[in-house]
Amino acid sequence: MLLSELIQRRDKIRNLMFKEGIDAALICCNVNLIYTVGQVVSGYLYLPLHQPAQLFVKRPSTLHGELIHPIRKPEQLPELIQQCELPMPKRLMLEGDELAYSEYQRLAACFPETEVVPCGTKLIRQARSIKTSFEIETFRRSGRLHEAAYSHIPTLYREGMTDVELSIEIERQMRLAGCLGIFRVFGQSMEIFMGSVLAGDNAQEASPYDFALGGKGVDSSIPGGACGRPLQKGESLMVDLGGNFYGYLCDMSRVYSIGTLPQKAYDAHQLCLDIQQEIAGAAKPGVACEALYELAINRINQAGFADCFMGTTQQAKFIGHGIGLEINEAPVLAPRIKQELEPGMVFALEPKIVIPGVGPVGIENSWVVTSEGVEKLTNAPETIIDLLA
Amino acid sequence: MLLSELIQRRDKIRNLMFKEGIDAALICCNVNLIYTVGQVVSGYLYLPLHQPAQLFVKRPSTLHGELIHPIRKPEQLPELIQQCELPMPKRLMLEGDELAYSEYQRLAACFPETEVVPCGTKLIRQARSIKTSFEIETFRRSGRLHEAAYSHIPTLYREGMTDVELSIEIERQMRLAGCLGIFRVFGQSMEIFMGSVLAGDNAQEASPYDFALGGKGVDSSIPGGACGRPLQKGESLMVDLGGNFYGYLCDMSRVYSIGTLPQKAYDAHQLCLDIQQEIAGAAKPGVACEALYELAINRINQAGFADCFMGTTQQAKFIGHGIGLEINEAPVLAPRIKQELEPGMVFALEPKIVIPGVGPVGIENSWVVTSEGVEKLTNAPETIIDLLA
Repeated sequence: MLLSELIQRRDKIRNLMFKEGIDAALICCNVNLIYTVGQVVSGYLYLPLHQPAQLFVKRPSTLHGELIHPIRKPEQLPELIQQCELPMPKRLMLEGDELAYSEYQRLAACFPETEVVPCGTKLIRQARSIKTSFEIETFRRSGRLHEAAYSHIPTLYREGMTDVELSIEIERQMRLAGCLGIFRVFGQSMEIFMGSVLAGDNAQEASPYDFALGGKGVDSSIPGGACGRPLQKGESLMVDLGGNFYGYLCDMSRVYSIGTLPQKAYDAHQLCLDIQQEIAGAAKPGVACEALYELAINRINQAGFADCFMGTTQQAKFIGHGIGLEINEAPVLAPRIKQELEPGMVFALEPKIVIPGVGPVGIENSWVVTSEGVEKLTNAPETIIDLLA
Repeated sequence: MLLSELIQRRDKIRNLMFKEGIDAALICCNVNLIYTVGQVVSGYLYLPLHQPAQLFVKRPSTLHGELIHPIRKPEQLPELIQQCELPMPKRLMLEGDELAYSEYQRLAACFPETEVVPCGTKLIRQARSIKTSFEIETFRRSGRLHEAAYSHIPTLYREGMTDVELSIEIERQMRLAGCLGIFRVFGQSMEIFMGSVLAGDNAQEASPYDFALGGKGVDSSIPGGACGRPLQKGESLMVDLGGNFYGYLCDMSRVYSIGTLPQKAYDAHQLCLDIQQEIAGAAKPGVACEALYELAINRINQAGFADCFMGTTQQAKFIGHGIGLEINEAPVLAPRIKQELEPGMVFALEPKIVIPGVGPVGIENSWVVTSEGVEKLTNAPETIIDLLA
């Protein structure tokens, strides 16, 4: 990655630090290192407000460079910072919502004269929520690969397949298209494998994870997604696999059917497409997230689908979420979120309805906020595709 | 899962709490909830020393039971604990090495009259390191599925394939055999997709992750494992995919070749098998981990392989590690680790050598410590299999 790109990102963080009176950041969580260093390392990026950043690396031991220094343990940091002819920070921010408590305390103890504050996660996530041109272009490239992988789905179905078996064949197509597989999520209770394939009433199953829909999963150690049941005629299924092709998580869901569905399913699907269109027409810089949620929920209430919007037994209370190095970034399109859209934000919009006895319908695409509106980054066909046709 | 199994596990934790003068634990990290509740939930297990455990659940909202209570936010905990007619804890342990700093502080603030201590991770990991009969049987079942998936590997190779393409076909076989895919690792810098396929000199590449071997990966956002290079005649490759079939991570590596390898590679491979046999003969309750490491390193030094044992450009400083709900549990077979083996411990033993210009050789199996010695849980053939034969 170009150094100019990294410096642009670091300066976005520095601007936020300046406003909070913070004169240095110590960054050591993987996603924030990818953001500021361009790669995962085991170590610490020391980011002073006014001087160049210094990288202190435990592993890989083969990484070398002018501003790169080997380190064995964090207790060496003060001495190494002094060797770089940098002053000790007065107010240092750590990644307080990501670092484990013990690790945070250990790092803070390395700077006994410094005021250590935990707002690193908040500020860096705020910086990350407005993507650079390079990041938006990365999403565009991801979108094309994601579309190419999904184009194989109609050829993968075989009669008698379980939802897990179909998922495995789609995962393989995603991987062959370049998907890195790993799926980074923010928050301690959140985790997921490559995404989900939800068929029929499994889409009604409540999960511990705060995704749009749940699913039972095949084992209580990862209770979400496909459940191992054979796909049935008359069922719909939703494919929602994460498009992590370059570290950035593109999000796209598409719906398939095994034969023809009841008319109600097609009506509900069209309603979700209409909601998507309405929100895409209204979304632009300055519009509050809650206003977009309201648009959706009003249409849903009018159409009488309130009890099966975003789930049935447990309903997700959002219709979209920022995406980036993690699948759940800012902003969140949810009630009472006053945050306004800004150019460069990238989010997934996913109005979804679960029809009991049939399965999930609806849509999900990734969008970037431009100066005037929003632009779709994932352009696969949006109708329900019959896998028996 | 049987309640008796869960109670047995909780009592192991309680015994350790008692020794530390701790009268309650609050458990909310996924692996520890799988251990104590049998499933992932978004919520909190409150484990008092002398009374039955109470589960407070945010999600899934559909979970009900006598000792299960709904909760919206942790600030409700003191009131809910009182409603269960339980006293406020005097000394409460939290998962200090796993909970994010902010979350830890938020939970601690809910108990202003209580001494809150961060040793939850340490104690629960200690309890988890000695497996129950049920857990050992789960490993046994995993081992059989892991072996079955690996038995397909010789049929998956096609001329001109890249290491990533071969990995994708093996991942598919693992998934079809029941592998859940997700791979849980302890520690903030650690992450991995389904495991690694390392071929030729890619096995020499140093990685930020503290696994036995590295690999460049295909993207700097996940720099480990296969790198996308076509497999070449005369190379060895090592398959090290994680066998997560029931939440427990079985570990097994096997070596393949594209045609015939130089004799040195076969010699090095045999040396690793000899080391495995020697350690398996010596390992039993009461033996210190460092003693087993010494056995290995002495054999390696005698044979003149010190500069390519466990990597070349960066060498891992262990030959084995505990496995369980995470791939890196206690004990660690490493220098200066005085901890002694105990019956019920399950560990992976992985003496590996990287031959520059050829690739990785060696072995990895999962073992359980019995009352008299150790027993192998993964029994696939251990010779180098020629994929061209």
